[in-house]
This record gives sequence, structure tokens and C-alpha cells, in this order.
Amino acid sequence: MQEDSIFTKIIKGEIPSYKIYEDDKTLAFLDIQPETAGHTLVVPKIQVDKIYDLPDDYYGALWTTVKKVAANLERVSGQRSLIKVIGTDVPHSHVHVFSLDPNRPAETDPPMADPEELAKQAAKFVLK
Amino acid sequence: MQEDSIFTKIIKGEIPSYKIYEDDKTLAFLDIQPETAGHTLVVPKIQVDKIYDLPDDYYGALWTTVKKVAANLERVSGQRSLIKVIGTDVPHSHVHVFSLDPNRPAETDPPMADPEELAKQAAKFVLK
Repeated sequence: MQEDSIFTKIIKGEIPSYKIYEDDKTLAFLDIQPETAGHTLVVPKIQVDKIYDLPDDYYGALWTTVKKVAANLERVSGQRSLIKVIGTDVPHSHVHVFSLDPNRPAETDPPMADPEELAKQAAKFVLK
Repeated sequence: MQEDSIFTKIIKGEIPSYKIYEDDKTLAFLDIQPETAGHTLVVPKIQVDKIYDLPDDYYGALWTTVKKVAANLERVSGQRSLIKVIGTDVPHSHVHVFSLDPNRPAETDPPMADPEELAKQAAKFVLK
């Protein structure tokens, strides 16, 4: 059996959290290392590392909760909500919901790709 | 009537794209400014600026396509797939799916927040 992740311990109430929303399949709580005020983590109540490996019901419930959290965060903060799935630190899927910070420089875009290279990639990555 | 976004023009076929996947509600195509090989944009086939303002059927379809694209990208690239909703450049919701780049330094986490400040935020941002 795998060890409980820190998020599973939070779900079980063994570690305290600043809860924002909860339903039968998901939990949303404040990130203790916030990018912006109200930065929230949304997690499924099952411990699966990669979000795209979640069963469809938990995956759907997770994004439904993200929609609620993101809309509410914008209502309260007055700023557009941003969403990221980047974490590899905790082996338990989690979605970051935080605010656009108008005082922070926007992420710079990478350079334009070579069209021939893109055509090769399209052939490689197309869904079969 | 709002002007067609560049993504609507791509959906209509007025602007070419490197298509990765398509169904009745969503389109996935390569970003021409890729973070990593296979960097894909997934868009709904209706022009709505913020993802959390999408009608539930398009919102659900969008994340279902993201799941397929992210799993396929990992199968092909051999790297974990990452997901971001950050764009404010095009007023048409879009999800970035790209790969973890093991040669790039990970994003650094912001500092820990003060617990009293977090408690205040939790009261402010909780879903009512």
C-alpha cells in the first residue's frame, strides 16, 4: 500500500488546512505558499499522482470544483483567476487556482517554432 | 457581435493549424510558440474569454479533451504532461498542455505565508 500523501492526511483531517470548499470527491484549501492572496489547491479525494490518470468521475468532479473556486476567487479578488497543474512535489494530483497579478511581469512567450519542425511534431503527437 | 478570435478563425479553418485532435465541442492544435515539443492548445468551439465562464457542457468537454491530449503527450514524449490556463492574450479560453522539461530548473515556490494572514484569507475566500 502506498504511503498517505500530505494531501490525503489533510483530507483525513490529520493535518489542519484552511478549507475553502469540500464535497464528496474533492477538497479545496489554501496553499500555504501562495502566489497571490486566496491561492487555492484543489485535490481529488483519492491519491493518484497524475491528474490525467484519475478515473473520469473524480477527474470531472475536480474540474467542476476548480470552476467554482476560480469564479469565486475572481468575485472576491477582482482579478482574473489562473489555473496550473505543475506540481511534481506531492504525488497526489492537485490543481493550483490563483490570481493574475497585474503588478508582476507576464510570463514571456517562447520563440516561434520552425513550421517544418511543427509539421513533424504534429505527425508525432496527433491522437490516434 | 464580437470579432472572431484567432482561435475561432482556426476552428473555422480560415487560419491553418497543426491539428492534434478534434470533436464536436473542442479542438486541439500545436502552439506555434512551444515551451516543449508537442506543446498543444486545447480550445472550446465557442468563443468565451474565461474558462470558468464556459457553459458546463463545453467546460466538461474541454477537460475531457485535455485528459486525452495530456495522456497521449506523455505516451509519445516519455515526460510527464503539465497543464496551464494562463493566457490573457487571446480572449478565447485555451488550455496549454506541454511537457515537464527535466533540463529546466523547476519553478521556485513562493515563501510560506503567515498563518494569521492565511486564516483571514480563508474567511475571505471560502465558498458561500
